[in-house]
Amino acid sequence: MNRRQVLQSVASVPLATVVSRPAQGAMPEPAAALAVMRTRRQAWLNQAQALIPTLSQTEQTPLGLVRFTADPSLALRLRIDPDAGPPLEDRLLEKGDSFILDFGGHRTGHLSFDLIGEGRGVDAPVRLRLTFGEVPTDVGEPLYPYKGQLATGWLPDEVINIDYLPQSVHLPRRYAFRFVKVEVIDTSSTFAVRFRNVRATALTSSGTSPAPLRSGDDLLDRIDAVGLATLRDCMQTVFEDGPRRDQRLWLGDLRLQALAAYATFGGHELVKRCLYLFAAFPRDDGLLGACVYEKPTPRYGGIHILDYAALFNAALHDYVEASRDIATGIDLWPVALRQVELMRQWINPEGLFVDPKTLWLFIDWNEQLDRTASIQGVLIYAFEHTVHLAHLLGREHEVSGLDKLIARMRAAAREHLFDPKSGMFVSGRQRQVSWASQAWLIIAGVPTSTRQAAEAIRRAITLETAIRPTTPYLYHHVVEGLLGANLRQQALALLKEYWGGMVTAGADTFWEVYDPEHPLSSPYGDIHINSYCHAWSCTPTYFLRKVGLTQ
Amino acid sequence: MNRRQVLQSVASVPLATVVSRPAQGAMPEPAAALAVMRTRRQAWLNQAQALIPTLSQTEQTPLGLVRFTADPSLALRLRIDPDAGPPLEDRLLEKGDSFILDFGGHRTGHLSFDLIGEGRGVDAPVRLRLTFGEVPTDVGEPLYPYKGQLATGWLPDEVINIDYLPQSVHLPRRYAFRFVKVEVIDTSSTFAVRFRNVRATALTSSGTSPAPLRSGDDLLDRIDAVGLATLRDCMQTVFEDGPRRDQRLWLGDLRLQALAAYATFGGHELVKRCLYLFAAFPRDDGLLGACVYEKPTPRYGGIHILDYAALFNAALHDYVEASRDIATGIDLWPVALRQVELMRQWINPEGLFVDPKTLWLFIDWNEQLDRTASIQGVLIYAFEHTVHLAHLLGREHEVSGLDKLIARMRAAAREHLFDPKSGMFVSGRQRQVSWASQAWLIIAGVPTSTRQAAEAIRRAITLETAIRPTTPYLYHHVVEGLLGANLRQQALALLKEYWGGMVTAGADTFWEVYDPEHPLSSPYGDIHINSYCHAWSCTPTYFLRKVGLTQ
Repeated sequence: MNRRQVLQSVASVPLATVVSRPAQGAMPEPAAALAVMRTRRQAWLNQAQALIPTLSQTEQTPLGLVRFTADPSLALRLRIDPDAGPPLEDRLLEKGDSFILDFGGHRTGHLSFDLIGEGRGVDAPVRLRLTFGEVPTDVGEPLYPYKGQLATGWLPDEVINIDYLPQSVHLPRRYAFRFVKVEVIDTSSTFAVRFRNVRATALTSSGTSPAPLRSGDDLLDRIDAVGLATLRDCMQTVFEDGPRRDQRLWLGDLRLQALAAYATFGGHELVKRCLYLFAAFPRDDGLLGACVYEKPTPRYGGIHILDYAALFNAALHDYVEASRDIATGIDLWPVALRQVELMRQWINPEGLFVDPKTLWLFIDWNEQLDRTASIQGVLIYAFEHTVHLAHLLGREHEVSGLDKLIARMRAAAREHLFDPKSGMFVSGRQRQVSWASQAWLIIAGVPTSTRQAAEAIRRAITLETAIRPTTPYLYHHVVEGLLGANLRQQALALLKEYWGGMVTAGADTFWEVYDPEHPLSSPYGDIHINSYCHAWSCTPTYFLRKVGLTQ
Repeated sequence: MNRRQVLQSVASVPLATVVSRPAQGAMPEPAAALAVMRTRRQAWLNQAQALIPTLSQTEQTPLGLVRFTADPSLALRLRIDPDAGPPLEDRLLEKGDSFILDFGGHRTGHLSFDLIGEGRGVDAPVRLRLTFGEVPTDVGEPLYPYKGQLATGWLPDEVINIDYLPQSVHLPRRYAFRFVKVEVIDTSSTFAVRFRNVRATALTSSGTSPAPLRSGDDLLDRIDAVGLATLRDCMQTVFEDGPRRDQRLWLGDLRLQALAAYATFGGHELVKRCLYLFAAFPRDDGLLGACVYEKPTPRYGGIHILDYAALFNAALHDYVEASRDIATGIDLWPVALRQVELMRQWINPEGLFVDPKTLWLFIDWNEQLDRTASIQGVLIYAFEHTVHLAHLLGREHEVSGLDKLIARMRAAAREHLFDPKSGMFVSGRQRQVSWASQAWLIIAGVPTSTRQAAEAIRRAITLETAIRPTTPYLYHHVVEGLLGANLRQQALALLKEYWGGMVTAGADTFWEVYDPEHPLSSPYGDIHINSYCHAWSCTPTYFLRKVGLTQ
């Protein structure tokens, strides 16, 4: 299913009849791994909950006041100018007055301030509207009328009434922001207000930041810093996908965040917690969820993405490799095994993935993308990780046939998904050429040679009609594909062009969606609902620090 | 100053230069009483703070769901009908859905509810708008565009975002309400919400309610009950004027609330606290404030009303009479004495009040009212209370000349304010006839006979051109005036007509303003900012229970 179908299928279910309960799979009798999963669910949840990290709280003061000026030459069309007026503490604000604070850089956290009333009679509640901005467009443009499809409650504004002045105001909700716009809706005719001691409290579980990168290339150093900030602000009591919107633990995002974290903050314990959360909330047949809700208490996410479930095995393997925590690997091994059991049923005897049409295949948000070739790559990659994990854990015997399956799948991909005429991988009946198919089949080791891999991906990237990525998540895999094809310079160039494009557009953290051609686009119908600090965007720091992709 | 002038004078002061500091009076050297006031301020404040009552908290569930139907035959033009839909707990609410709860009767307090998300994915914050209604128009009509002059922050609506479901939601602010309208601004496309366990927590310091009145007249019994509810909901940690709006301790209101409380709930300790609060925050020259702010910490109110300051002496006398708390009377005696010293300067040698034009004269909101005759009455009344208080406290020697002054003032009033031709009291150069002048001069014992009093007030009330009251506060004094003129039947009739009019219009508590001819009028430009539970309206219960005005 693509995004629109997902939304439609959800919308078409009468709400009264929808229950948050795993759908019944059409699976045969539970295998041994599934039996373990069912037995261990509560223990795994307890384990996850025992790992809830303490968030560090850092108090931060704003750098100053700013205003935004229309500038069509900029990607977001708004220039940040200093506000030439007096400092905030020297301003007495009346009905209709407003200001915009710039805290410099992005944070996930709280806002507090002292509000003082001054005048003949401080005799009424003050009504304020606060708007939290990750980027200038959030606060420099009106949020209403809201045109998006996502919940209005995600819009980053708040109307509050403050009863008694002076008062130290602490907003109870958490926000993701660099800018805060404050509008005085009203005081009364007999007093005005003054803001003092405005401060943010930044929250993260990331711990100490690594030393800044010194690559010799300022743009790369900045890309690394922005990636680090993205990861830091998504590291809360789980790896969130975006601290402004969604705030949810997604398996696909987790895998990339974990890779970036191992190379920077560490974060092994948080990864462990998240792996356990996924293990605790599978579907009845053991298929892992694509996401898990954490709050108010952890619960089943109700959404399944085939490629995400498969990638759990890669994430678990990465974790055991990074942490050497064999015990956790063994504890969660039945989960990985069960994913393989489930995935195998969708491989035909020849070794080709056949879309069961009952599951969401993600890969990217691009609705035009034919995903079957990419999924073939994902499954091979996931199975291979499973084999490596089995070796680490001494469980080779439990995956004895998997190597052969992987070989068969690679052979089938070479046979059916490679177009010798064009030299590129193709997907589906329409034999669609996409960046995704090249990238994932290279990552899966399908090409017969590095040269074949390099030609396939180079050609697709330069082919006008090839389906391109729309998300940083897929761009990550394209960079991986280029590296797999030994196209290091091209990988670096893409990283600089794509993530560097966001930096040039003013990003303090990397965005959920970024289309260089249309930086004001949104998959949700309104850019003000986009998330501008999004986990799956953070991986440049992994490439720069772990892979050493700095030149 | 009338209300408009007050607002204008306030508005014309540049906010930046206004400081919350007592204005300098043009008084001579401080007298002994003033010296004591200055010395004792902090001690009196401490005494007031030691008397902060504990509020009782009563949990209440709504009676049901209602809707409002336009009905031009009703005073507020909205009929309350039961909502024929399913019970609230059986409703699953989506974007755009709404409901109106009827808690039955008025309360001051909090609202709590459990909010449950149901659907395929409970994946976003819920945005709700809640509107608290004292009367149907509050929630049955749009609040916006708001046309009033008072602070928008007083409007009884709130937009909240609730991050995680299920959640037990407790709104932190206090509201005054019978009805609560809940509008679901948005959930998301994958879930809806259900409300459970909606409950109010009613707050009051009034203690146990007296037994219901059994007068034999249903309307009177209902008027008494509504008056009691009004008083109960205004009795918080001070006697508030209105629990929805203003929420402030006003001296004029306090005096009437105290009279009603002595006859019903008691409340002596709360009166004592309030008297001490006024004593602690006078102007530099000792003139008492018209109001005191209680929260976040008690402070000077910055507003002075000549008649209110004078009536402190009546309120203190009433308190000592009701409580027999001589010690407090003696402690606060210098305050009463100082008020007399200040008031005397505005009496000319003949014994007539001369408006100093530097102070607000209240009496009523009616802007047409000439207040000088009424103030003459207020001062005589206040001085007489002071003499009685002096006797109670053994301080007669300190007010030795006051009896003579009172006599002179009565004589001057008879000479200059009584029009023998019309048989009514007149006020000002225009020799204006008003209900207020008759009432206050009768209360002050100015008429030479009960017959003269009766004729004066009867004629004024039937005179088309006489200036009428606009507030329940002045209606109270008109009833007092009728009783003073021995017009018991007319007093009872007025009470039934005026307060009974509100009851017939559907009042659960008595209103801040009620014009029988124009029940949809507001002194503030918008009826949605009116207070429908207002302390100065509660006195029918005093007349019915203390005065015995039931037949």
